[in-house]
Amino acid sequence: MHPETSPLSLAQALIRCPSVTPEEGGALALLDAILSAAGFWVERPVFSEPGEPDIENLYARIGSGAPCLLFAGHTDVVPPGDAAAWTHGPFAGEVADGMLYGRGAADMKGGIACMLAAALAFLKARGPDFPGSIAFLITGDEEGPAVNGTVKLLDWARARGERFDHCLLGEPTNPSRLGEMIKIGRRGSLTGRLTVHGRQGHVAYPHRAENPIPGMLRLASSLIADPIDGGTRHFDASNLEFTTLDVGNAATNVIPADARAVFNVRFNEGWTAQTLGDEIRRRLDVAAGNAIRFTLDLQPSNSPAFLTRPDAFVDLVAQAVEAETGLRPALSTTGGTSDARFIKDACPVIEFGLVGETMHQTDECVAVADLERLTAIYGLVLERYFFG
Amino acid sequence: MHPETSPLSLAQALIRCPSVTPEEGGALALLDAILSAAGFWVERPVFSEPGEPDIENLYARIGSGAPCLLFAGHTDVVPPGDAAAWTHGPFAGEVADGMLYGRGAADMKGGIACMLAAALAFLKARGPDFPGSIAFLITGDEEGPAVNGTVKLLDWARARGERFDHCLLGEPTNPSRLGEMIKIGRRGSLTGRLTVHGRQGHVAYPHRAENPIPGMLRLASSLIADPIDGGTRHFDASNLEFTTLDVGNAATNVIPADARAVFNVRFNEGWTAQTLGDEIRRRLDVAAGNAIRFTLDLQPSNSPAFLTRPDAFVDLVAQAVEAETGLRPALSTTGGTSDARFIKDACPVIEFGLVGETMHQTDECVAVADLERLTAIYGLVLERYFFG
Ligand SMILES: [Zn+2]
Ligand SMILES: [Zn+2]
Repeated sequence: MHPETSPLSLAQALIRCPSVTPEEGGALALLDAILSAAGFWVERPVFSEPGEPDIENLYARIGSGAPCLLFAGHTDVVPPGDAAAWTHGPFAGEVADGMLYGRGAADMKGGIACMLAAALAFLKARGPDFPGSIAFLITGDEEGPAVNGTVKLLDWARARGERFDHCLLGEPTNPSRLGEMIKIGRRGSLTGRLTVHGRQGHVAYPHRAENPIPGMLRLASSLIADPIDGGTRHFDASNLEFTTLDVGNAATNVIPADARAVFNVRFNEGWTAQTLGDEIRRRLDVAAGNAIRFTLDLQPSNSPAFLTRPDAFVDLVAQAVEAETGLRPALSTTGGTSDARFIKDACPVIEFGLVGETMHQTDECVAVADLERLTAIYGLVLERYFFG
Repeated sequence: MHPETSPLSLAQALIRCPSVTPEEGGALALLDAILSAAGFWVERPVFSEPGEPDIENLYARIGSGAPCLLFAGHTDVVPPGDAAAWTHGPFAGEVADGMLYGRGAADMKGGIACMLAAALAFLKARGPDFPGSIAFLITGDEEGPAVNGTVKLLDWARARGERFDHCLLGEPTNPSRLGEMIKIGRRGSLTGRLTVHGRQGHVAYPHRAENPIPGMLRLASSLIADPIDGGTRHFDASNLEFTTLDVGNAATNVIPADARAVFNVRFNEGWTAQTLGDEIRRRLDVAAGNAIRFTLDLQPSNSPAFLTRPDAFVDLVAQAVEAETGLRPALSTTGGTSDARFIKDACPVIEFGLVGETMHQTDECVAVADLERLTAIYGLVLERYFFG
């Protein structure tokens, strides 16, 4: 492998592009140059949204026939925080003791470097006339509000007639060891804002006021008293967490007028945002009776639960992982949301990438050996996907 | 009665002094001039506290023998709010349709005007050599932090050998009609700050975090699940109100580290701040078990419950009220705290004043007829107190 196209060199070059959302930082330009040189058709659509910064994205494809295997990911990274707290500069891309350090090493410039290295090696070995096509769908807006990223890029591609058969998203899916975990689905996310209404007054005259806090205690308790469900074959039980509870009354002799709470539910594929919202409202209605006045706002969620049911493609990826790591990866649906929630409407999507242990942290890093093994895994997937 | 010493003229003159806490506004100077002219020994001690404005106060006495009847009150007033919203200027002291308007009309410049008018009339009728003495203890710091007011003024008087036998505090005690209610005690006030400690994390990984909100729901609910007591002969049941509940977490995907609540208890004479604090802590310990980590801060309270048990002095005042109004006043312990909580350590204290319906509100007002009747009540108290 030519040194400039080794996964380590590519990952280092990407880390050295300071592409903290919404900055492109040179990362997409680098991918553009390399993919173009390898014969890909490359586009760099920029998307806008009122009140949000413009965001650069990248789409590339080689080949025009089916099947099309799509590699997806993002080059934007979360801020490094206090750069002085890093042992190695967050944008230096230094290697020490076999580890590559830098913001995005795990999430997910390292993964993109491996995809790219694998595709280049595959094309070098098989030439451009393999039976099918390979595409890259890379956004610069995954860690931010994600309104000018994957969603619009998929629409853009669809409008141009681009069709995909399977997608491999390179997010860091392994908790601590490469090969442990493939994500075949993600729970949905629903955020609710609950307000209990009372009437302000003086603590010495509670009968002239209506304290909203006891009502809030009752309603909030009713949402966590019983589990939402018991989980499904591929998913954990849905889970509701209150994230805040606020009144904001500084006067210790005043009964406040309102109490507000926010909760977030991570739900499995037994629910849609609609049916789950109905269940939450039913629980609140029962707890409130005629005694508690409340308002519930459920945020329209573009984050439904989804599952890519284990099939031949999942098997192919799992076997490639096992062949290179000796581990039989768990087919998991745990963890937070990812852009797979959008991609699943275009084609079946699964996620496999590096070890995520240090992602979003100071001294984010990945093992250089893992970069090489992940490249080999992606290479095996390409080989078997197109040549069986 | 000389027009300048009628209760209406005195109340108008006091209202025209803009004595919003901490401003003296000329109100104490006016009392000083009138009391001095009537033969009282008058002092105007100023008290200081680091970080607080200096506050003027007034102490006056005529006679040196026992018994000494103390009239107590405050000339400071709460701010008028939006002066343009008042039908009559808050500091104009205008009369319309038999009502005197202005900030402090009810709370409690009107009451002070009546005490003063009654004392002047009594001295005019009986001369300065009546068997006993009359004192005035008037602060300019009741509506504010109250650290440079009655407490220090009582210490100051005690240090000078001043002794009192009974005190009549002229706060507005009648809910809607003059004569309805004498206050013979006040509930105590205890404020608690409850913090439940958890561990921050991501909502998608609740097992790696420890959400403090369910614990707060449990602990807060445990404090309001059962009544604190059933009330006593002279007091309503003690009552706990949560005044705020705060987490302050804006991120809907983050489990917060801590949750905080503040509550205030108005408690009867079955408790001290210490015994009540112990009971609250016991309830929290039971609810928390080993599962919830919490901190409880109980604010040192200088606001214990107190009761002046019905006796000859209470009877004397109640009979004077009934003689002038035809109403048999309720002997109540309801409502907020007052400076009586401090005075009760110097001598038995009860409260009787004007109708409080409009106190602290826009267009605060009292009936001119009530000023005259309250002056007559105070006059009858003086007469019977010293001459049986
Ligand atoms: Zn990522
Ligand atoms: Zn008052």
